[in-house]
Amino acid sequence: MKGCKYGTHRVINESVLPQPALKVDNNMDIYDNEILINVSALNIDSASFTQIEEECSHDIEKIKDRIIEIVREKGKMQNPVTGSGGMLIGTIEEIGCDLKGKIDLEVGDKIATLVSLSLTPLQIEEIIDIKPDIDRVEIKGKAILFESGIYAKLPKDMEENLALAALDVAGAPAQTQKLVKENDTVLVLGAAGKSGMLCCYEAKKKVGKKGRVMGLVISDKQAQFLIENRLVDTAIVGNAQNPNEVLQKVLKANNNQEIDLCINCVNVCNTEMSSILPVKDNGVVYFFSMATAFTKAALGAEGVGKDINMIIGNGYTKGHSDVTINALKESETLRTIFKNLYV
Amino acid sequence: MKGCKYGTHRVINESVLPQPALKVDNNMDIYDNEILINVSALNIDSASFTQIEEECSHDIEKIKDRIIEIVREKGKMQNPVTGSGGMLIGTIEEIGCDLKGKIDLEVGDKIATLVSLSLTPLQIEEIIDIKPDIDRVEIKGKAILFESGIYAKLPKDMEENLALAALDVAGAPAQTQKLVKENDTVLVLGAAGKSGMLCCYEAKKKVGKKGRVMGLVISDKQAQFLIENRLVDTAIVGNAQNPNEVLQKVLKANNNQEIDLCINCVNVCNTEMSSILPVKDNGVVYFFSMATAFTKAALGAEGVGKDINMIIGNGYTKGHSDVTINALKESETLRTIFKNLYV
Repeated sequence: MKGCKYGTHRVINESVLPQPALKVDNNMDIYDNEILINVSALNIDSASFTQIEEECSHDIEKIKDRIIEIVREKGKMQNPVTGSGGMLIGTIEEIGCDLKGKIDLEVGDKIATLVSLSLTPLQIEEIIDIKPDIDRVEIKGKAILFESGIYAKLPKDMEENLALAALDVAGAPAQTQKLVKENDTVLVLGAAGKSGMLCCYEAKKKVGKKGRVMGLVISDKQAQFLIENRLVDTAIVGNAQNPNEVLQKVLKANNNQEIDLCINCVNVCNTEMSSILPVKDNGVVYFFSMATAFTKAALGAEGVGKDINMIIGNGYTKGHSDVTINALKESETLRTIFKNLYV
Repeated sequence: MKGCKYGTHRVINESVLPQPALKVDNNMDIYDNEILINVSALNIDSASFTQIEEECSHDIEKIKDRIIEIVREKGKMQNPVTGSGGMLIGTIEEIGCDLKGKIDLEVGDKIATLVSLSLTPLQIEEIIDIKPDIDRVEIKGKAILFESGIYAKLPKDMEENLALAALDVAGAPAQTQKLVKENDTVLVLGAAGKSGMLCCYEAKKKVGKKGRVMGLVISDKQAQFLIENRLVDTAIVGNAQNPNEVLQKVLKANNNQEIDLCINCVNVCNTEMSSILPVKDNGVVYFFSMATAFTKAALGAEGVGKDINMIIGNGYTKGHSDVTINALKESETLRTIFKNLYV
């Protein structure tokens, strides 16, 4: 039997797509245009993992129980508070007869799904380990990829976990490459995080010698780290939840000039105005953070009379996994950092 | 004493701007760079008003109590569920000494504030009347405009309530004018609503003879209305909360082609995917609806592998009140409709 290419046939009792659905059918008998994956690990979205960690008082056993509870209730690993998901890694176990031979996958291939866990039917048999420092959950389980679902075959010339660690934020650096122009002044909020560093790296390549990439981080240690690794031209230490502080410090670091582009990669809420205030008229704010609140951005910009363009971070853009894998291949610095921090 | 131009001096116990603040100080003694307004009416944001109406079972007295309760708790009329506000109309009662003579306002001028109620300190002495069909609350009360707050003096050659009715959605048609290009195919969701009609009108002017403006509405009656008033080229009847239905109907109406631009003016939730699915690669979705959920849009587009640009509707852009007032001045059709429906 053939299902909808977008997966609506798996939505239970609602006429919506799988992502906004309260619950999806996670029965692992596949439709003719679905792919069955033997899952080895989940990379939980940072905003989601942080929320669950706090809710569970950083107790690993409680976090395990909470994740199992969410998947049992929803049929997918979608954080009910943040609404966000993450991605997974696994091996192709079965390809529906409609897709066999028509896609570049074979049974046994290792892939990372590039669609969100927030719409991916999932069954967890057992949680083997949780690595809270890298938002990773190692499991025994299965998942379904719909016909429209995007994925990346894991590169053979790169350590699997390294590729995976980068691919779950692949949208951000690829969108950065598209948005940044030569000579731009760019501010990255949350610059020392995983997507933040990749955005800084791509922005630095695009702005050229007359442009400037500034990274906002929460600690002196992170600032020093960014500078030492030449990921930014200027590192600013400040609290992204305090828009006045951010505005004053950015203006000071940029000869009292407003900036062209702000990229928000922070994983806590209430950072909308810190992204908006430093940007000049007709400038751009790119919200990649899943903790962004739509109304806070929309009404916040209006409230301060800012004529700027605010973009919702799209996790997908053509070739985004290549951009990210290439960044890791060409930069030994990034490779070393990612190996140390996320693998 | 001078306050912060953005109004942070009024935020109680938090280091945030007035919009995200839980509570603002609504003491009506003004700072040197504030303006005191004698308020006659609130135009509640449509998403907010709908939510309150439903919560109060459409009982006018309960709605009054709920609005008074919200303002007492928060010092501003910000719906705690939707986060949104609206705008107000009133007369200038006092101008702070720092601003006197430096702005184009005098005591006694009638204005509409163009910043959201969600950040405007407000005191309600009495609710005089509620007009649920136009989301209007007539009150006796006072409000504060910060130095950065934008406003429109009400035009003398136009009925006050008519101008007001249009100005609270002034951002949408002005942004439409900027986004739409000649020959574009444009879909407006919620096309028969207030912002929807203004967007259709501006889009029609911009697309030219080879372009096409399609309006999605919920009823045959609304579709007929749009066609009779020549606000759209094609009216589509469908449920904006059902993305599959919307996709199929839009493709059918557009020779099986995806569209260039979708403008979302719907005031209910779960319409993100209906906006995303019909748009072609590199196309644009402009979310003006305050019921938009950031993560549903971001993860939804990724989930279906759509390489599109999604923009957060900014209630402000330069000259936005002029665009809107001009639309009403030049179109007798719009004037008549607005007088009938919203005044």
